[in-house]
Amino acid sequence: MAVSVPHAPATDYAPIDAAVDDAGAVGFVAVGDRFDPGLRYLTRIEGPEREYAFVRVGGKSVLCTPEEYARKAEAQFDGAIAADRVGDPAGERAAAVLDGELGGGAAGPEVGPVLVPPTIPHDAAVYLQRAGYDLQSTTAVADARVAKSDAEVGAIDAVQRAATASVREAERRLATADVGADGGLRRSGRPLTAAGLRRATNAELARRGVADADNTVVSAGGTAIESGAEEAARGDRPIRAGEPIAVAVGPRGPYGYHGSVARTVVVDSSGGWERRAYVAAESALDAALAEIEAGAVAATVGREADAELAAFGFDPTDDSATAGRATPGHGVGLSRRERPSLDADTELEAGAVVAVEPRVADTERGVVRLSALVVVTEGGYERLGDGERSFTPRE
Amino acid sequence: MAVSVPHAPATDYAPIDAAVDDAGAVGFVAVGDRFDPGLRYLTRIEGPEREYAFVRVGGKSVLCTPEEYARKAEAQFDGAIAADRVGDPAGERAAAVLDGELGGGAAGPEVGPVLVPPTIPHDAAVYLQRAGYDLQSTTAVADARVAKSDAEVGAIDAVQRAATASVREAERRLATADVGADGGLRRSGRPLTAAGLRRATNAELARRGVADADNTVVSAGGTAIESGAEEAARGDRPIRAGEPIAVAVGPRGPYGYHGSVARTVVVDSSGGWERRAYVAAESALDAALAEIEAGAVAATVGREADAELAAFGFDPTDDSATAGRATPGHGVGLSRRERPSLDADTELEAGAVVAVEPRVADTERGVVRLSALVVVTEGGYERLGDGERSFTPRE
Repeated sequence: MAVSVPHAPATDYAPIDAAVDDAGAVGFVAVGDRFDPGLRYLTRIEGPEREYAFVRVGGKSVLCTPEEYARKAEAQFDGAIAADRVGDPAGERAAAVLDGELGGGAAGPEVGPVLVPPTIPHDAAVYLQRAGYDLQSTTAVADARVAKSDAEVGAIDAVQRAATASVREAERRLATADVGADGGLRRSGRPLTAAGLRRATNAELARRGVADADNTVVSAGGTAIESGAEEAARGDRPIRAGEPIAVAVGPRGPYGYHGSVARTVVVDSSGGWERRAYVAAESALDAALAEIEAGAVAATVGREADAELAAFGFDPTDDSATAGRATPGHGVGLSRRERPSLDADTELEAGAVVAVEPRVADTERGVVRLSALVVVTEGGYERLGDGERSFTPRE
Repeated sequence: MAVSVPHAPATDYAPIDAAVDDAGAVGFVAVGDRFDPGLRYLTRIEGPEREYAFVRVGGKSVLCTPEEYARKAEAQFDGAIAADRVGDPAGERAAAVLDGELGGGAAGPEVGPVLVPPTIPHDAAVYLQRAGYDLQSTTAVADARVAKSDAEVGAIDAVQRAATASVREAERRLATADVGADGGLRRSGRPLTAAGLRRATNAELARRGVADADNTVVSAGGTAIESGAEEAARGDRPIRAGEPIAVAVGPRGPYGYHGSVARTVVVDSSGGWERRAYVAAESALDAALAEIEAGAVAATVGREADAELAAFGFDPTDDSATAGRATPGHGVGLSRRERPSLDADTELEAGAVVAVEPRVADTERGVVRLSALVVVTEGGYERLGDGERSFTPRE
């Protein structure tokens, strides 16, 4: 039942080396912890819990890892390892690696700058500067992450299948619920709540071997449960017939890649607001998808979705509902949300994986969310996971 | 079935204000994303996915959040909100907040420095410096996080109950497995694997409303499955009678706090290496716990555990087994691993929550892991979760 993917994604360092050459720099340094998606991209390891560093110098890759992680790094990392003594700052060790590769502490402004991501930790930047290196920030890593390789698409496709199945499980539970005399849904004699549905969805993700990554949100009418903390803090109420139930997941699976699925169903709808909102969201999704191809401006896709919602009489910029204003979509990869944002004036690249997520929200009535996850191609897009959806929950 | 905790933890800003006063500083700024536990501590919100900032100035707390998160922040954050326009760097907005509170762009070295955590993103640091503020790094936040309030202990206790139940579920599955003629374990006619046990453990965590947070590790003999990625990359084999099966979880629950449980069982043990390793780990756990009280040196606790393992003939510094050298224990809170480390020469503080985790590892035979999670008190410690354990799996 667990996900499977054929190949481990590998990283092409050519864009990093090119950025170093273009800047007349001596090398590239990234520093962060295991939650840094840029470092995961550069190293392809899950990473130690303490700070670590990646150094690219003279066409070589060096990983500076805390000592206790060195053996695991050796087994997994395709490059040299420089193990820290416990407590050694990663930035200091990265500077030592540069010194060693560049010929021993001869650093200075005259040898050229070191490229770093703009969000490198300040203490690491200061260690590099103290060692004599000028720093220049680069977006080369974030740029390189946008277009996905076939192996990366394979990893996303695998987790997307688990994501789709988890939302389908939530749908199945709603389809098999009973409606009580008071309009509340019940299963096996117990009230069915948004929090309970969120737990069941996450359990299905776990059974398929992927992590919910705290991204699962279940909304029923005006109630949205986004975390166990919220549930614990606010309590929960039974889901009622007629209200839109939106289930959105963004699990993390093989090699750290994410999926993204949002679906909405209504039990025993009377066909009012929620039906119109659903049709509007479907039309917005189709309109947005029709704009997607390599070279299209990302914000055009988002605007097309918004215009369609507006044509149905819904205001997509209304942020009065619980969850605030949503973006019309975004890239998906090692981050749950990454470039390109569908409200940015950048051109879509072939190979970019994009979640299109139209949404209609109303403070009283609730939220209707739909989504599609696609790979951008030269002439259009290919869908990841199935695009099946149903307004009425299916068993 | 979901976890429940009585109170939302609140943050006492007095230590931050005292650090500002002591340094003759004008304020404090932290910048990061939703994965930054320091920012979670300071703001008590889950946070937007894009970078955000917390500013403490003149006894006031200000949250600089991306616009799309502003409504949610207003509902959850106990302080003022400064909403960014989309794309505004958090560091720039934090500088503007300081300017506003300090009287309008009059910043300069003469007004005193701004305190920042050492790992503030470099670009944010540069924005603050460009606005005229000298930066001085402070450990005040990390220091303040060590001793937990009653509400924080309550949150940890709640997630620890779910953690204990999930490991118990794995144990139950092992207790009800059949041993095949080839020595392999089977349930419902299917081979029982480490990966399958990991999925079942995570599903139990999900059913209880907490996130596995990618921290679940199931080892059987020489095979350790730490992530869906590893499983997908390497495949898996049936668990065999006689080999130690170690299940370790570190889920994240209400208000972002973590639990920590490790247990080991053996099905049909013949009483050899694995039995001796288990007894040694039990003795090491007891010896370490006996050292715990406020004022004790943390590394003493770890050394006591190591000495006990050595007395049984096991080398705790041997890192030849799969997972490398483990630390003997560490603090647990908003981070899965945080201060104090049980190999550091720091004094244990009353209120610190510490996981003691002795481990015996052998490349061929596998890993035996046990743990206890305790709150340090003046005279000793109090245990969180139950301390029950069994070498033979219980139904």
